[in-house]
Amino acid sequence: MSGPLRLYDLAGADEDCRFSPNCWRTRLALAHKGLAVETIPWRFTEKEAIAFSGQGKVPVVRDGEASVFDSWAIAEYLEKTYPERPSLFGGERGHALCRFVNQWVSETLHPLIARLVLPDLFLILHEKDRTYFRKTREAAFGTTIEALADERERNLVVFRRTVQPLRSTLAAQAYVAGMAPAYADHIVFGALQWARVTSPLALVAADDPIAAWFARMLDAYDGLGRGMPTAAG
Amino acid sequence: MSGPLRLYDLAGADEDCRFSPNCWRTRLALAHKGLAVETIPWRFTEKEAIAFSGQGKVPVVRDGEASVFDSWAIAEYLEKTYPERPSLFGGERGHALCRFVNQWVSETLHPLIARLVLPDLFLILHEKDRTYFRKTREAAFGTTIEALADERERNLVVFRRTVQPLRSTLAAQAYVAGMAPAYADHIVFGALQWARVTSPLALVAADDPIAAWFARMLDAYDGLGRGMPTAAG
Repeated sequence: MSGPLRLYDLAGADEDCRFSPNCWRTRLALAHKGLAVETIPWRFTEKEAIAFSGQGKVPVVRDGEASVFDSWAIAEYLEKTYPERPSLFGGERGHALCRFVNQWVSETLHPLIARLVLPDLFLILHEKDRTYFRKTREAAFGTTIEALADERERNLVVFRRTVQPLRSTLAAQAYVAGMAPAYADHIVFGALQWARVTSPLALVAADDPIAAWFARMLDAYDGLGRGMPTAAG
Repeated sequence: MSGPLRLYDLAGADEDCRFSPNCWRTRLALAHKGLAVETIPWRFTEKEAIAFSGQGKVPVVRDGEASVFDSWAIAEYLEKTYPERPSLFGGERGHALCRFVNQWVSETLHPLIARLVLPDLFLILHEKDRTYFRKTREAAFGTTIEALADERERNLVVFRRTVQPLRSTLAAQAYVAGMAPAYADHIVFGALQWARVTSPLALVAADDPIAAWFARMLDAYDGLGRGMPTAAG
C-alpha cells in the first residue's frame, strides 16, 4: 500500500460535520478492518471531485490504484482484499444474511429517517448544496422539506413501530451480528448516527434496547462514532 | 433415538391441511437436518394434547424424552442436538443474523399476511376452532374477520411495498441464506406457504424475484412444500 486509504465523505457547511449514513458504514468497516483512512470532506454538488469513480455519490474509497463506490461494494471489496483482517461478514452465510439487513436498512429505515431529519439536516448543509438537495429530496418524497416537519410526530410513531424486529433482536443479543459488532451493526449504526448528527430528535426512547446498543456502538472502535458531535448538543 | 421425532402440527377441518407458518419453519428445518418426523394433526382448541409442553401453541416437537416448543427454540434445539447434520444457521454469526430475519418475518410480515388471509383461512378451520379463532384474532386486530376482506386491496399494496428488502435481496442471490436454502429461508417460506395453503390470493406478482425463490423453495427438500395442496387449486 502507498499510504492510507482515502474516503470521500459527505460533509455539511462545517467540513468536520460528517453525517452520511452510507459513509458511516464505510468508516466503521474500515475501523473494523484496522485500516487507516484519510477522509476527504465532500459536498453533494462536487461531482467533478469523484468523477474518477464513474458516478456522482459517496462513499467512494481510493485504495492505491483501486477506486470503489457504493457502501455495499466497498464492504465486499474490503472483505476480499483484506481477508486476513477481522471479518465484516463472517463467511458466505453471514454475507448473504447481512445483505438482507443492508436492504432493510436502506429501503425501509432510511426513507423513514429521512422524513424525520430532513428539516434539520437541510440547515447544516453547505449553502452551495441547498438548491440541489431541496430539488432532489422534494422530488423523491413528493413534498416540501418544510412540510415534513409537520408530519414528524406521526412519522416517529411509524419509525418506532417499524424497528420492532431490530428491538427484539437486540433485546436477545448484544449486537446485530451476535456477540461482537460487525458489518450488519455498521449498517444499522450509520442510519442512527445520521439522525444523531443532524437532528436533536430522539429516534428511540431512552429505555429502548436499540438505545443501549447504539451507545455501545458509539463507544466501539475507540469511540469513533461518539467523536462526531451530536446535533442535540 | 426411539423412532422418528414427533411434531404437533396445526391442521384445518381437513386434517391433511397444514397451514401454520411456524410449523412450516419446523417442517423444513427437520428436512434440512435429514430427520424423519411423524406429524400429529392438532387444532387450536386441543390445548390438553400439548399440555405436556407447559404451554398451548404449536409447533411442539417431541424427540425421545425431550419436548421443545416455539419455532425458534426448536431450530436452536435441532442445531445443538444434531450438530453433525447440515447446519441451519451457519455458525454464530449466521445464527445472530438469522434472528433478525426471524423477528422481521414474525413481527412485520406475519401481521400483514394475517390481515390478507384471515377471511379465507377462517373457512378452512375445524368447526370446533372457529369461536376461539374469531375471538383471539378479532381482539388482536381490533376488527372483524369479515371487515378485513374489505381492506384487502389496500393491505396488499402495503405488503408488496414492505417486502422490498426481501425482493432486492433475492434479486441478488438465490436464497436468503446465500447459495443454498437454510433456516432463514425456512422462516420466510413458512410465511408465504401459510398464504398459499389458505388463500387463493397471490401475495406477490408472478415476475417478482420472491415468486421465483418461492418456487425453488416449494421444490426443495424433495418437494416437501409443494406436496401440500394450495388453496388456489
